[in-house]
Amino acid sequence: MTKPWEENIRKVVPYVPGEQPKGERLIKLNTNENPYPPAPNVAAALEQMEIEKLRRYPDPTASDLVCALAQYYGLEKDQVFVGVGSDDVLGMAFLTYFHSRKPILFPDITYSFYPVWANLFGIPYKTRKLDDNFYIRPEDYFEDNGGVIFPNPNAPTGLYLPLEQVEEILKHNQSSVVIVDEAYIDFGGVSARTLLDRYENLLVVQTFSKSRSMAGVRIGYAFGSPELLKAMENVKYSYNSYTMNLPSIVLGVEALKNRDYFTRTIDKIVKTRERAKDRFRTLGFHCLDSSANFLFMTHEKKDAKQILEALRSNQIYVRHFDGPRLSDYLRVTIGTDEEMETVYEFLASYLRLNNEFGSW
Amino acid sequence: MTKPWEENIRKVVPYVPGEQPKGERLIKLNTNENPYPPAPNVAAALEQMEIEKLRRYPDPTASDLVCALAQYYGLEKDQVFVGVGSDDVLGMAFLTYFHSRKPILFPDITYSFYPVWANLFGIPYKTRKLDDNFYIRPEDYFEDNGGVIFPNPNAPTGLYLPLEQVEEILKHNQSSVVIVDEAYIDFGGVSARTLLDRYENLLVVQTFSKSRSMAGVRIGYAFGSPELLKAMENVKYSYNSYTMNLPSIVLGVEALKNRDYFTRTIDKIVKTRERAKDRFRTLGFHCLDSSANFLFMTHEKKDAKQILEALRSNQIYVRHFDGPRLSDYLRVTIGTDEEMETVYEFLASYLRLNNEFGSW
Repeated sequence: MTKPWEENIRKVVPYVPGEQPKGERLIKLNTNENPYPPAPNVAAALEQMEIEKLRRYPDPTASDLVCALAQYYGLEKDQVFVGVGSDDVLGMAFLTYFHSRKPILFPDITYSFYPVWANLFGIPYKTRKLDDNFYIRPEDYFEDNGGVIFPNPNAPTGLYLPLEQVEEILKHNQSSVVIVDEAYIDFGGVSARTLLDRYENLLVVQTFSKSRSMAGVRIGYAFGSPELLKAMENVKYSYNSYTMNLPSIVLGVEALKNRDYFTRTIDKIVKTRERAKDRFRTLGFHCLDSSANFLFMTHEKKDAKQILEALRSNQIYVRHFDGPRLSDYLRVTIGTDEEMETVYEFLASYLRLNNEFGSW
Repeated sequence: MTKPWEENIRKVVPYVPGEQPKGERLIKLNTNENPYPPAPNVAAALEQMEIEKLRRYPDPTASDLVCALAQYYGLEKDQVFVGVGSDDVLGMAFLTYFHSRKPILFPDITYSFYPVWANLFGIPYKTRKLDDNFYIRPEDYFEDNGGVIFPNPNAPTGLYLPLEQVEEILKHNQSSVVIVDEAYIDFGGVSARTLLDRYENLLVVQTFSKSRSMAGVRIGYAFGSPELLKAMENVKYSYNSYTMNLPSIVLGVEALKNRDYFTRTIDKIVKTRERAKDRFRTLGFHCLDSSANFLFMTHEKKDAKQILEALRSNQIYVRHFDGPRLSDYLRVTIGTDEEMETVYEFLASYLRLNNEFGSW
């Protein structure tokens, strides 16, 4: 029975994040975390953090982190915005930039948080079907709209949209904000950051959670024109003035100091990914051509959900999404070579066994 | 000139947080921070934090922290909600619970973020005038409404509303959510937490930023009935699944282990506050009867803004609010005894000098 007070509150269906199972032995390839630890200098900064400073409010502008990002990426300070993970940045971007009665547009297969934010804030939206090979078709985003958002590389496909095609979308959208969600861009692809000079309605969102091994610190950021970012800053200061805690500011700045570690870590992951594609292929999988730190793959014979369960009962966690065109696929995060070896071995024996017993 | 894309975005006037001046020598009494560092065991936990764990997403439920709070306060786990400072919790509470067309009610003199959240989310509101002595009148909140919120003790007055009067407000509001914002409750007053059993539409919000010396870590929390909190959790998961970073979870749990340090720190601050009231009185100030970690005070002769500027030019920061009935007052956070001594000395000489030169 509905209580009287319940009639006046907001009811939403929330996003369901990937499982966070606990345990030492498990192989966790379900939430696209980096298998390598943060840069060694980040550990040193953590040890040296002054406890006394925690009693004070952090700098509400997170100026140290904003400046470090601006410098790292060759931008001005007023072209950078930071938040508590890219979800915080994207959530605020939805709230700020998608304020039209016209529907916003995003792909039908994409980051599953987009429709959740739209529903939360009452934003009308339309989805655009990926083509038969799971690619975004730029021309699908040329119609009049209240805003456009897509990940590049897309999730959970891992497919990258070349910069010229991103620019095609921008060229056809000068009256609404276009958000390019680049959580995975560091693993292969050119950032739309290079288009900032020409499109002041472009927002590019990135994160420390994947390529910088710092999902646990919650740092996301966005690049955009000063005018564009000013509107989102006002919303941020209208919601929570102090979003970034002191540890995240200090550790974020520190991580940016180590370009070499960043590059080496990414190189390793990309190499492992390319090897994994070959290995999975020999096991009967078809993998999309990923530019991210995961593979989106389907088996020629065996049901994806059955493989998921078999892996899980062997302490290997990967992700499965229900939904049209998705349910035959698994999304497998790239782990260390050692972790991946365990996965190949398990799958080889599991699939052989199933084959022998005639289950496919 | 308005750009085409600017027509479709949200425009708000943000909350202006208290200044965060940098410098070693300054005395910062403008944002109600605790003058004492976090508990010593918090420092130890920071040193022992495992950097490797930062590569993974934190537990989205922040279960360790939620359990620690539930245990500390003798509640069930599903009666506790956590967020990135109490502003994050309050912002989400506004978004979740104030979803009616009827106006919400809050005092005319109160935490200045309330109208900002209402404007951000398009929530209609009405303010209720404090009485001539700056007290909340419970009967002002008995009319039909879309929700009620007030701080207890109130800010920036520091005045405490006895629990029976809080309950009067609850008794007359069974069809909307009533939020008691208890950021300062630990400095004097009984928490409305004790009323949770009887009112399932009651939300009590508290923070680690004041009494637990951890403003820099950003931890806020709320108590409420499981049904009430479920709605806010759904909104939280619809906005950002991982709000609490690993350092905040670990340090928050650790802080709760040290009840003794917590009690001693509060005792010290309360003693300093009571002494400060006497000292300020001898200097010609009238202080409201604060139950918080600050004093709201006005000078019998000297203009508040002039005192503010004089203090500032001497590296002492306090807070002044513009607005009817507020502009004659200063809000002074209680610092260490040593810091307060410096303030008294400066004010004594400043006020004497002004008196001698006949400026009042």
